[in-house]
Parts: sequence; structure tokens; C-alpha cells
Amino acid sequence: MKTLIELSRSGKIPPVIHKIAKHENLPAKEIMRLVACGKVVVPANSSRHLKHPCGIGKNMSVKINANIGTSPDCHNLADELRKLNIAIEYGADTIMDLSLGGDLQKIQKALLAKSTLPFGTVPIYEAAKLAQEKRGNFLNMTKDDILDVISRQAKNGVDFFTLHCGVTKKTVKTLFKNPRMMGIVSRGGALLARWIKHNQRENPLFEYYDEILGIAKQYDVTLSLGDGLRPGSIFDATDKTQLEELKLLGVLAKTAQRKGVQVMIEGPGHVPINQIKRNIDLEKKYCNEAPFYVLGPLVTDIAVGYDHIPAAIGSAIAASLGADFLCFVTPAEHLKLPDTEDIKLGVISSRIAAHSADLARGNVNAWQKDKMMSLARKQRDWTRQINLSLDPQKIRQKRRDSQPKIKDVCTMCGEFCSIKLMEKSNRRA
Amino acid sequence: MKTLIELSRSGKIPPVIHKIAKHENLPAKEIMRLVACGKVVVPANSSRHLKHPCGIGKNMSVKINANIGTSPDCHNLADELRKLNIAIEYGADTIMDLSLGGDLQKIQKALLAKSTLPFGTVPIYEAAKLAQEKRGNFLNMTKDDILDVISRQAKNGVDFFTLHCGVTKKTVKTLFKNPRMMGIVSRGGALLARWIKHNQRENPLFEYYDEILGIAKQYDVTLSLGDGLRPGSIFDATDKTQLEELKLLGVLAKTAQRKGVQVMIEGPGHVPINQIKRNIDLEKKYCNEAPFYVLGPLVTDIAVGYDHIPAAIGSAIAASLGADFLCFVTPAEHLKLPDTEDIKLGVISSRIAAHSADLARGNVNAWQKDKMMSLARKQRDWTRQINLSLDPQKIRQKRRDSQPKIKDVCTMCGEFCSIKLMEKSNRRA
Repeated sequence: MKTLIELSRSGKIPPVIHKIAKHENLPAKEIMRLVACGKVVVPANSSRHLKHPCGIGKNMSVKINANIGTSPDCHNLADELRKLNIAIEYGADTIMDLSLGGDLQKIQKALLAKSTLPFGTVPIYEAAKLAQEKRGNFLNMTKDDILDVISRQAKNGVDFFTLHCGVTKKTVKTLFKNPRMMGIVSRGGALLARWIKHNQRENPLFEYYDEILGIAKQYDVTLSLGDGLRPGSIFDATDKTQLEELKLLGVLAKTAQRKGVQVMIEGPGHVPINQIKRNIDLEKKYCNEAPFYVLGPLVTDIAVGYDHIPAAIGSAIAASLGADFLCFVTPAEHLKLPDTEDIKLGVISSRIAAHSADLARGNVNAWQKDKMMSLARKQRDWTRQINLSLDPQKIRQKRRDSQPKIKDVCTMCGEFCSIKLMEKSNRRA
Repeated sequence: MKTLIELSRSGKIPPVIHKIAKHENLPAKEIMRLVACGKVVVPANSSRHLKHPCGIGKNMSVKINANIGTSPDCHNLADELRKLNIAIEYGADTIMDLSLGGDLQKIQKALLAKSTLPFGTVPIYEAAKLAQEKRGNFLNMTKDDILDVISRQAKNGVDFFTLHCGVTKKTVKTLFKNPRMMGIVSRGGALLARWIKHNQRENPLFEYYDEILGIAKQYDVTLSLGDGLRPGSIFDATDKTQLEELKLLGVLAKTAQRKGVQVMIEGPGHVPINQIKRNIDLEKKYCNEAPFYVLGPLVTDIAVGYDHIPAAIGSAIAASLGADFLCFVTPAEHLKLPDTEDIKLGVISSRIAAHSADLARGNVNAWQKDKMMSLARKQRDWTRQINLSLDPQKIRQKRRDSQPKIKDVCTMCGEFCSIKLMEKSNRRA
């Protein structure tokens, strides 16, 4: 079966692209052109029927990802299924299962079966956990352990993989030569760096990249080249190690695209506001405008417990400057495994960031939404405002709990509602 | 008694400036120079002893304001005192009392007595309410009604006044000639526009500006020239009306400064990300770099119930580009009078925005905070992380509710904590 990139080169337009064209309000041909040159990806495993595919990249609306999944300390499948539903309900475009606790295969299959959205994983997690169970320590993980997991997950229908191919002997050496505040804060990155150091061997995700591309191609799995060496503090932002890895990811992206495999690039992390533009520009330059998937970035390190807010700030700025895909950050970041309420807040905050960037990028669909809300506000049509809101249930309850005496205004201004005052003025004019 | 501007011209440095110099880590002389040329204001009524004054403007750290106060539907003094304490506890730099319900004089006196921070008001609110009670309708408000309130509040010790002097016959005419999505969304702006239209007379705050300057000078009250014609929807941002008012505020600011009265300029409102820079640049140009006090700006209209998030995005961008003073926005915006939880979230979000902008502006004190948090995170010193956080009580509880098996990590990664993995790697190296 041909991959989307191969199809796009042949001039054929598959149904999934028509679906996306309609959603984006763009010609299908234009989307195919962008997929062909690697500037847009459509993560959709060819072996499963994906209900809500999406396009990520140039000229597309900004997309957001929600991370769910277990940890060694908390692994309850029912909880994760609830998180999946919450993420879908509040507007995530894709889901990633980052499970690291419990029966990983069972959890992943259950989540994948229920995900109507593109579904991503980090195969190295499962490979490391299996090696730990089978061989006593993840440091004993073999190349085949890794490739077997990738192969099985691809077969199961996973739509995109985060693969930390840029954590190599060379980039890790650069890291140790250029000390950082926080070292490595990517779990996949840290696992691989330790493995490389312990085994004195090259990262199998890098060494056997061609074999991996073969598997990805078979199921048209999109690669998300992970930034295992991303900064975990604003002090480490845009440093030598980060940029060396980014450059390498650009080279790897080219290879993938040439072989017909879709690819996007993962980015930071922790970045102060004044460095965000440089980060976007360098990714676009080094990676030939492959879609850029950023984690936040968090614009400060201090906001533990409220990290969805600096992430919303960083995401909105990054996306307004060209980032294409935003990984949400929840209030639980740096603190604990997120619960359903954290997932909800993470999705809503990221949704607001993506939408704000869409407005800045002149997206017509986005402006239409603001128009509808502003009109409902002007008309003091509370039912419509609530239905148009990001969280109708909560807004309805808040409105119910704070009823004004005059029914069409709110308890902030009451009879001094500026909109109503001006309406009276207009009537008399 | 001389005002700060007059003192600054005479070369004397009063104690309040030494206090601010210490806080900002800048020479007192430099701050006096900036006060003298109107680029920094220090709102501090000369008739009261203000415990925590602050400098707002060029080269200062970014400051945030929290609005509290009653409404016609909700007016409980005890609630407002609680909100005041919450705002102070979570890091507001100034407080504004926007009360419009209940016994305004009693409420204001009680709040002012308890405010250790610079305290601002919008005198037109009290004047309108008094006219309504005394003369049946706020439209019957007289010039003396307004000046009496301003005079009394100045005498009582209010540190800064929002005065919508830019809502004039001319600017209101411009508004009606250039229709908007939302018209006027400033309460003070709407009250005055209706008054002007009904009475066919000029706005007394504009017509009797010199008299008002006389009162302000007597107590060194700082003027915050209100943007009564600010955009209330992204569709109205940076329009002709808004810019005409801004230009006029620049002229009025110059007059105030010449007379020795400190002045800052209020700004929007609702502005899409891609227009924020223009808004900042125009204020700096038209108003000769007088401190810019922005309300958000909200970068989208759709986020009712979560408006602290688009406000944090807009504020962080605005402040990183030169805005000096951020009015917080709470999740209750556009919905209801905020409660204590809303006030807390508003202050924390605005604090994060201001801090992120301070980092982008290279503020050394701000970078020091991130360093301390990152070091505590690296060392997995949870007590220090909690104590350094924006909300220790909440973070402590969250940590307590989600205890990992391995004590020094968290339940997100457990044994796969990247920081710990790398630490082991370093030890073996």
C-alpha cells in the first residue's frame, strides 16, 4: 500500500485528504502538494480507520496534542480511558499514550481502540520496560527489543511515533562538554543517553533508522523526531546541544521524506519569550519547514502547579510565529501524573493558545468563532455564549450561581452594563 | 507639599524612591530622572503612609494590578476585604477598588485602610452613583458632583485615579461614524458617552482637566488616563476611535507632567497577537513613553470562563514589548463579579505573565528566581520547590495527594525520572 507521500507524488487524492481539505477550507490539491514536499503531515496509520484525521503544518490551523498514560506509581486503565474522553471532549486534535506503568500492551490497545483521534506513542518506553522485566535492567535492552516494539505498535494501528533519533554518541558528547542547568529532561532522551554511555554503542534508533523507516512506511506511520536533548530550564534554551540535535533531526527528516515517510520535528521545552522566534526560525531552516511540534514552550521555570499558563503563553507566541503543533502542558507538570481535571485544563489552555495563534495567522474559520461569540455577547444572549464557550457545563453553572437582578446582564456591572448603556444611547439617537 | 515630579526636578531624593531603588536594584538617581521626564510613575498619595510603594514604567520590573470591589448585585464588604487580602498574598503590586454597589464611601475607606499597596479608584463610578441617588439618574450628574468626589477621594489617600478624559464630544463622534462590533465596553467610557450625548455637553473630566490636575497635585495623586474607547472585541482593535483617543491622552499626559502631576496611560482590551506590537509602539510614540497600563490584552474573544489565559498570553507579549503595568483579568471576566478564587487565579496568571516578560527583558532579579527553582527541581528538593512556588499551600497539598513510591521523584515518571537517570549516569562517569 502506498504512503500518503507516495500517493501525493502520483497525483491521486485519497479520501482522508478531502476530509482535511473540507475542515481547513483549502483545496485538496494544495494539501497534497504540501504533504508531498513534507511541509504538512497527516498522521493516519493505513491499517486502521481513523475517524478524525488532521493535517499538521504549513497553512493548516494549529493543532494540539494531549498526553495521557500511566506511570509506575499510578496505573489504572479506567482512569486513562476517562482522560482520553476528557481530552477528546474538550478539543484535543491528537492523543499520545505515554504509559510507563502497568500492562503497557493492554493499556495501549484499549486506548487506541477508543481514540477517534490520531494516536501517538513513544515506543522506547515499552522497549525499556520490557527489557527491565525480561533482562533485569533497561540498560540491557537490545536493538531487536526496540524494533519489535516499533513493529508491533505500527501493526496495531499507532498513527505516529516519537523517536529520539537525535540522541547520539556525538550529541551526548556535546552535552557533557557543555554543561547545563538541567541536563536531560526528556525521559526517552535520558534512557537513551544512559544506554549509549553504559553500552558504549550508538543509539539503535539512529543506527537502524533505515529499518525503522521500512516499518513506518509499511503502515504509513508518521515519525515525530523527538528532542531528547531539549532544554529543561530557560537557562539551557537554544544552547549548542539543542541546536546540534535539531540540525541532525533536519537531516533525518530529509531521509524519511525521500523514502516516502511523513515526518515532523519536536521542539522545546523551556524557552524565554525573547528566544522563541529564533527557535522557530532555526527549525524551519534546518528542517526544510517540516511541521514543528513544540512542548509549550514554558516561558518560565517557576510556575509549578500552574505550568499550563506559561505553556499557553509560549505556545501562542510560538504558533503565531510558525509552530504547527502544540503539545499541551497541564497544571500537574513537574509535580505529579495529571488527573482528569489537569487534562481538561491542559487541553483548554492549549486550545486557547492555538486559537489565538490562528487569529494572528489570519485563519478565517478562527475569526468566525470570535465573531459569533462577540455577537452573542453584544446581544447578551447567554445561552449562545455558553454553547459557544470552551466549557459549556462549567460556564452554565457559574452563570447559574451568580444571577443578576436584571436578567440580561451579569453581576459584574448590573445596571451599569456598558453594552446596555450604549444600546440605550443608540436607540435615542 | 511638593509632588514627586517637582522634587525630582529639584534634585532631592525622597525616602520612597530609595525604597523603590532597592527593590528594583537600580540607582535612586536614575529612578528620579525617569520620574522627572514622566517615564516612570510612583503612585503614592502624599497624605498617607504607603507601606509597599512601587515604580511603574521604563526600566522597572513589570507590575500587576488586581481589581476588587462590589457591584449592584453583590456588595458585601467582608467579601471585598477577603479579596484584598488574597490579592496581596498572591503578589499584586497595586489594588483598584471598582465598587459600584452598596455604601461606596464606607467600602472604599475600609479597603484603603487595609491596603498596604498603592490603591486606585475610578471616581466617576461614585459620582454617577451619587447622582443617581441624589438626582434620580446619573445623566443628571454635574461637574461639581464629579470634582467633589475626586477631591474627597484624593483627601482620603487614594494613590491613583482612572479618569476617562479622552471620551470627548469629538472622539465619541468618531466612534459613531466608525461603527464597531462592540461599541464601548468601558463602564466609565459608556457612562460618559451617554452623559455627553444626553446633555449635549463636553465631558467634565476633559473640560475641567486643569482643575482636576490642581486636586491631583495637592496630594500627588497619579492620573491613569482611562481608555474609555478601548476595543471590546478583536474586531475593533487598533481602530480609528481607539487611536484618536490614545493621541488625545498623549496630549493630556504632557499637560499633567508639565504641571508636576504623574500620569500613566491605559490601553486595551481585546487585541489579536499580531497587533500587540503596534499598540505598544503607538502608545510609546503618542505619549512620549509615559507608562503603559494594559488590560490584558485578551488575544481572543471566545474564552469566557477562562479569560485569565488569553489575558496572560496578551499581557506577557505586551510587557515583553514594552507595556509596563498589567491589569489582571480573572476567569469571571464577561461572566460575573469575581469571587476570591477568581481573584487568586487572576493574580497568579498575571504574575506569571509579568515575570515571563521580566525574563525576556533581561531582569536580573527575575532570572535569579528561575535559577533557584531550577536548582531545587534538579536537586529534587520538594520543600524548596513548594516554598518557591506561586501557591505553596496548593502545591504542597497536590504533592501530598500524589506520593511516589520512591520519595525524591514524582508520580509522573517514578523510577524513570530523567533527572535522576542522568544523575546516575554522571556518577558512573
